[in-house]
Amino acid sequence: MLIVMNHNATQSDVDAITRIVAEMGFRAEPIPGSERTAIGVLGNHGYVDDSKILELPGVQRVIHVSKPYKLVSRDFHPDDTIVDVAGIKVGQGCRPVVVGGPCAVESKDQIIKTALFVKKCGADMLRGGAFKPRTGPHTFQGLREEGLKLLAIAGKESGLPIVTEIMSPDNVGLVAEYADLLQVGARNMQNFDLLRELGRIRKPVLLKRGMCATVEEFLAAAEYILAEGNSQVILCERGIRTFETATRNTLDLSIVPLIKEMSHLPIMVDPSHATGKRSLVSPMAKAALVAGADGVLIEVHPEPEKALSDGPQSLTFPGFEQMMNEIGQLTMFLQSR
Amino acid sequence: MLIVMNHNATQSDVDAITRIVAEMGFRAEPIPGSERTAIGVLGNHGYVDDSKILELPGVQRVIHVSKPYKLVSRDFHPDDTIVDVAGIKVGQGCRPVVVGGPCAVESKDQIIKTALFVKKCGADMLRGGAFKPRTGPHTFQGLREEGLKLLAIAGKESGLPIVTEIMSPDNVGLVAEYADLLQVGARNMQNFDLLRELGRIRKPVLLKRGMCATVEEFLAAAEYILAEGNSQVILCERGIRTFETATRNTLDLSIVPLIKEMSHLPIMVDPSHATGKRSLVSPMAKAALVAGADGVLIEVHPEPEKALSDGPQSLTFPGFEQMMNEIGQLTMFLQSR
Amino acid sequence: MLIVMNHNATQSDVDAITRIVAEMGFRAEPIPGSERTAIGVLGNHGYVDDSKILELPGVQRVIHVSKPYKLVSRDFHPDDTIVDVAGIKVGQGCRPVVVGGPCAVESKDQIIKTALFVKKCGADMLRGGAFKPRTGPHTFQGLREEGLKLLAIAGKESGLPIVTEIMSPDNVGLVAEYADLLQVGARNMQNFDLLRELGRIRKPVLLKRGMCATVEEFLAAAEYILAEGNSQVILCERGIRTFETATRNTLDLSIVPLIKEMSHLPIMVDPSHATGKRSLVSPMAKAALVAGADGVLIEVHPEPEKALSDGPQSLTFPGFEQMMNEIGQLTMFLQSR
Amino acid sequence: MLIVMNHNATQSDVDAITRIVAEMGFRAEPIPGSERTAIGVLGNHGYVDDSKILELPGVQRVIHVSKPYKLVSRDFHPDDTIVDVAGIKVGQGCRPVVVGGPCAVESKDQIIKTALFVKKCGADMLRGGAFKPRTGPHTFQGLREEGLKLLAIAGKESGLPIVTEIMSPDNVGLVAEYADLLQVGARNMQNFDLLRELGRIRKPVLLKRGMCATVEEFLAAAEYILAEGNSQVILCERGIRTFETATRNTLDLSIVPLIKEMSHLPIMVDPSHATGKRSLVSPMAKAALVAGADGVLIEVHPEPEKALSDGPQSLTFPGFEQMMNEIGQLTMFLQSR
Repeated sequence: MLIVMNHNATQSDVDAITRIVAEMGFRAEPIPGSERTAIGVLGNHGYVDDSKILELPGVQRVIHVSKPYKLVSRDFHPDDTIVDVAGIKVGQGCRPVVVGGPCAVESKDQIIKTALFVKKCGADMLRGGAFKPRTGPHTFQGLREEGLKLLAIAGKESGLPIVTEIMSPDNVGLVAEYADLLQVGARNMQNFDLLRELGRIRKPVLLKRGMCATVEEFLAAAEYILAEGNSQVILCERGIRTFETATRNTLDLSIVPLIKEMSHLPIMVDPSHATGKRSLVSPMAKAALVAGADGVLIEVHPEPEKALSDGPQSLTFPGFEQMMNEIGQLTMFLQSR
Repeated sequence: MLIVMNHNATQSDVDAITRIVAEMGFRAEPIPGSERTAIGVLGNHGYVDDSKILELPGVQRVIHVSKPYKLVSRDFHPDDTIVDVAGIKVGQGCRPVVVGGPCAVESKDQIIKTALFVKKCGADMLRGGAFKPRTGPHTFQGLREEGLKLLAIAGKESGLPIVTEIMSPDNVGLVAEYADLLQVGARNMQNFDLLRELGRIRKPVLLKRGMCATVEEFLAAAEYILAEGNSQVILCERGIRTFETATRNTLDLSIVPLIKEMSHLPIMVDPSHATGKRSLVSPMAKAALVAGADGVLIEVHPEPEKALSDGPQSLTFPGFEQMMNEIGQLTMFLQSR
Repeated sequence: MLIVMNHNATQSDVDAITRIVAEMGFRAEPIPGSERTAIGVLGNHGYVDDSKILELPGVQRVIHVSKPYKLVSRDFHPDDTIVDVAGIKVGQGCRPVVVGGPCAVESKDQIIKTALFVKKCGADMLRGGAFKPRTGPHTFQGLREEGLKLLAIAGKESGLPIVTEIMSPDNVGLVAEYADLLQVGARNMQNFDLLRELGRIRKPVLLKRGMCATVEEFLAAAEYILAEGNSQVILCERGIRTFETATRNTLDLSIVPLIKEMSHLPIMVDPSHATGKRSLVSPMAKAALVAGADGVLIEVHPEPEKALSDGPQSLTFPGFEQMMNEIGQLTMFLQSR
Repeated sequence: MLIVMNHNATQSDVDAITRIVAEMGFRAEPIPGSERTAIGVLGNHGYVDDSKILELPGVQRVIHVSKPYKLVSRDFHPDDTIVDVAGIKVGQGCRPVVVGGPCAVESKDQIIKTALFVKKCGADMLRGGAFKPRTGPHTFQGLREEGLKLLAIAGKESGLPIVTEIMSPDNVGLVAEYADLLQVGARNMQNFDLLRELGRIRKPVLLKRGMCATVEEFLAAAEYILAEGNSQVILCERGIRTFETATRNTLDLSIVPLIKEMSHLPIMVDPSHATGKRSLVSPMAKAALVAGADGVLIEVHPEPEKALSDGPQSLTFPGFEQMMNEIGQLTMFLQSR
C-alpha cells in the first residue's frame, strides 16, 4: 500500500502516519519526492482497509498494491484450472466447447427437439432457462421446477450435460439435482449469499460477468465461490452496459486474453446476450474463439419468432448448423498450429 | 407498438405482417412513408413481446409505445404516494426527511452513540447495515442478526425508526421483525425473488437504484414489489457507474425531478455512496433537496477513521451537525415559498 | 512514481530497474512487501512517461503520483481565480451569474427580443450560437459571421456581455472581435490547436467538459489554455454520456464541489444541454447553485416550438422569468448565511 | 416519424397536431391504441426537427424512423465501397490489410527502420504520427512538418503508402501532400470543420470512432465527408470509453459486422489503442479479422521501452513478426473457405 501526501503536508503529518501505521502492525517507509512525499506501507498480508489512513491530515490518497482476490489469481496459482462438466473438460488447452439451447425452456417438445439438433451439430452441452430473470413482472418468468425436469429429460435423450441458471440461494439444492453446470446470471454476479451457497456444493459453476462489473469485481465475485471450497468455476463474458445501444450490450472481448493472464480459471463467451442480434452471433462467436475463449454459449430455438424470450438473438436451426460448421473448421485450424 | 419496415420491403412483406399481427389478436395499420412503410399495431393491452415480429422478412425494427411497468406510473396513478415509516411521512408535500447513521453496525456503543447524536441534530430515522454486501469475501460482512438487535436497541433509546438492508429472500421475515423500513441495495435491485418477497410484507421498502440501471429498469423493479401488493415503496438514487472515477459513482440528480414526473412514488438520495467523499456529501445533500428529493440518507460515524467500511464517505459528528443546521435552514427557505 | 513488481520478480529484476531509473536521472527506492516489492521513484519534476519502465522484466504496473496539469491546480495556486467578463465578475465569492439566450441565433428579431427579455429578468450575459456543431450535415449549422453581428447588436441594445461558441482555430480572431466570453463546446474540449490559440488571446474562455472527459482530462484541457498565457478560464459542466438515455446527458453535479477543491478556476453549469428536457432545467439550475456553481447557462427562446435547434430543452419566456425569480430568492438565501 | 400521445390526451389535442403537421407540409395519420393514441407522420423526406411537435399539448414523445445520414447507408447504396490507397484496395472482398508503424515519428532512423521491417513482414501500409494529440500540454506533441517529411522518406524507401493523422482544417493541404491516407483521430471525429475540409480533397480518409460516439454518430460524421464529395472513407473502431479501466478502452468488435450491415464503407480495427496493452494486441487483431474487419492498425516500435508515446501498447519487432505470421495463416484460412 502506498500513501500519497498533499503537496503541503508537514513533516509532523508524515510522522503521525508513520506512528499510526506502526500501531496497525505494519511498517511505514516515507519516500520523499520533489513535489510531495509518499509513504510505503510494508508487512501487510492482503488487502488493508484504507479508511483509517484517509482520515489523517495531509493525506491525498491511498494506492493499493494488493487486490481483493487471491485464490482466483494466476499470480498465486500459476497452473490453469480445467473444469470437468460431467466428463466434458473446459479450460486452457482443451478443445473449445459449444453450449447450445434456447433462452428459456418452453415445452417438452421444444427442448428435446433442440437438444437432439444441437447434439447432431456437434454441441457439447445443452442450455435452457427454467428460472428466468426479467426486467418487469408482467412477462414470462420461466417454467421453474417443471423446466428443470424437461431439461433433464432432454439431457438424457441427447446425452448432453445440462447448463441452467440459478437465481436464489434457496434453490441451489434443487437446481444442483438436475444441472451439470449451474449458471449465475449477470444480475446475480454480486448476489453474495448465492455465491457462498454455490461455493459449498460440488458441482461446477458458470459465473457470468455483471452488466457493469469491472474485471476486478468479476474476479472478486469468483473468489467468493472459491473461498467456500468450490474451485470448479468457469467465467463468462456476456457484454457490458455502455452508452452504445446499437447492440444489446457491448461485448468486451479483450478481457478474454486479459483474464487468461490474471487468472487460472477458464473463460467462455456468450455472444447471443452480448449482441442481442442474430446476425452478429456467429461472427462474434468465432472472434471469441480466436481471442482465446474456452467456449461459447449460443442461443438457438426451433422457431425463434415464437420464442417467449430473446427471440431476436436466437439462431434458427439452419443458422446454428452453419455456425457449427464454421466453428468446426476454425477450431481445427486453431489446433493445427 | 410500431413496426418499421426496411427501405426495400415489399407489399407482400407488409401483407404478411398484417396477417400475423391479426393472428396474434391485434390489428395492424400500415402507414406508408416516402422512404419506408411503418405498421401500427393496435389493440394491445400492455407490453407485447416483439420477437415474433422481428423475425419476419422486411422488418427493420419494432418500437414499443407501452412500458414494462404500470402500477408505479404516474400516468395510471396521478396522486402522489405518501409512505408512512413508523409515523414519519415521506413523499411529495411532506417535509424532507434525513436518515442518518453508520454504514455498518459495529458495536452497541457505536450505534447507540450515533443514534442519540443524529436524533439530537434533528434526523428522522436511523440507518445502519447488519448484512453488508462487499466486493470481496475477505472483508467485514456485517454483524448480521446481532446487528439487527443492536439497531433495535438504538432505535428504542433514540426513538428513531430503523432502516436497514436486506440481502436475501430468506431473511425478509427476520429483518422485518426489527426494521421499520427495509432497504434493497443497488446490487440487489434486480434480485427478483427478493423483490417479490418484499411485495408480500406490510412494511415499507427503500429500493436503491442499481449501479447501471436505467430509470425504466428502476421503475420496473419497483413494479415487482407493487405487483405483489405492497405499494409502500420509496425509491433512492445513489449514483450510477460511469467512466468517471474521480467520485465513487456519478450522482444522477436529474432523475429526481424526472421520476417525480414519471411516477407517484417518493424518491430519496444517498449522497454518501454516490460521491464516496466526505467533503462532497453536504453540498450534494442540499442540492438533492433543492432538486425535489423527499429525503436524504447520510452516513455518519463517531470515528470515521476507525470505521470498518466506507469511512472516507462518512461524516464526523461535527460535520453532520453542521450539515443538519444548513439543511434545516434550507428546508425552511424551501417551504416558505 | 511507484513501480509495482510482479509477485515472482527476482532481486536482479529489482536491481536492473534501480539502475535504469538512475540512468533516467531519478532515484529508485525499493520497498519490499510481504507479497511483492514496489519501487519508489524520487526526484522527478512533473509527469514521467512510464513506457520505458513498463517494458522491464518483473514490472506489473506503474502508478503516477503527479498529474498531467499544474497551472490549473489549487495545490500550486491556492487563491481563487476571478474571471472578468466585460465587467461581470465570475468566481468563488461573487454573486452567481446567469447566462441566458437561445441555442442558436436565428434572426435579428429573435436575438434582440431574447436579449431584452433576459436582461429584464436579471440575466448577466447573453448567449447564442453563430457556429453550430451538429451531429449530421443535413441540419441547420448556424448563421456564422452574420450571427455574430446580430449577437453584437443584441448585446449593445441590452447592455449584456456576449457568450458564443468558437469551433475552429481559424475563427478565433473573428469571434474574439464580437464575443466577450468565447465558449469551447464539449466536442472541442480536446481540440488542442483551438485551445492553444485561445491561450494566446486576452479574452476569457468558457471551456465545456467533453461528453466523456474525466475530471483529470477536463483540467488538463484547461491547462493547455493557461500554458499559453491566458488564465481567464471558466470551466463548465454540461453533462456526460452514460448508459442512461432518459435524460440527454447525465449532469455530473458532484464535480462542482470537487473541482472547487482541485482547482482555483470558476465553474458554471449548463442544465439545458445536460438534461435536454425543459421541465428539468429550473430544478437542476437551482441544485447547481446550491452545490456551489459560480453560474448557470440557460437556453431560452421566444418560441421554442419553432427553434431551429434544441427546442425541447429551451425555456419559454414565462418559464425563464419564473426560474429567475426562484434563482433570485435562492441566491439571496445563500448569500444571507 | 411517429408522435406518441399521453394516456390522457384529448381528441382536440390530436386534432391540433394533425392540423399543425399538415401546415408543416406532411400528412398525419392517427393510430388509436387501447391505452393511448399515436400519430404517424407521412411524406417527410429525411430527418424532421421534432421541436415543434414536442411543444404541443398531449404529446409524450416523438420517434424518428429516419436517420441523420443517408449517403453512408447501405440502405441507399447497397454495393460495397472499395477504397484505393495508392494502389492498395481496402474493403469487402479484398484481402485484409495491415497498417504498421510507431505511434509517433521520432527520428529518421526510427521510422525508416520500422518501415523496412514492417514491409519485410508483409504489412501493406506505414503509419506514424507527426501531429500528436496529447491529454496535457507538457508532453511530446509530435515533430509536425518535419515528421511528415521523415514519413515520406520512409514510405519511399519501403515502398509503403503512408497513413498519418490530421488534427486541424488548416493542415489538410500540408498533410495531403505527404500522406496517402489521412487519419482523423478519435478526439476529432466531430471536428466538423475538419471533416468538411477532408470532404473537399481527393485522397482517402481513415475516420476513427470517437471515444464516446454511438454507431449512429460515427456514420453521421462520415456523412459530413461524403456530403462534400469525397466517398473514399474507411471507418476505424479503436475502442470506446466505458467504466472498465483494466484495458485502455473497450474494443467494441461487434460493430464490425453491424456496420457491414448498415453501411457500404470499409471498416478497420485498431487493437493497439483499444487495449493499450501489448499482450492483447495480437489476439484482438486476429479476432477483428475473423469478425470481418477489412484491416488492422498495429503499433510497432524498434524499442518500445524508449518510445515517446504509447510504448506499453507497441509491439516489439519480434512480436510484430510473429503476429504477421499468424495473421498470414489466418487470412489464408479465411479466404480458403
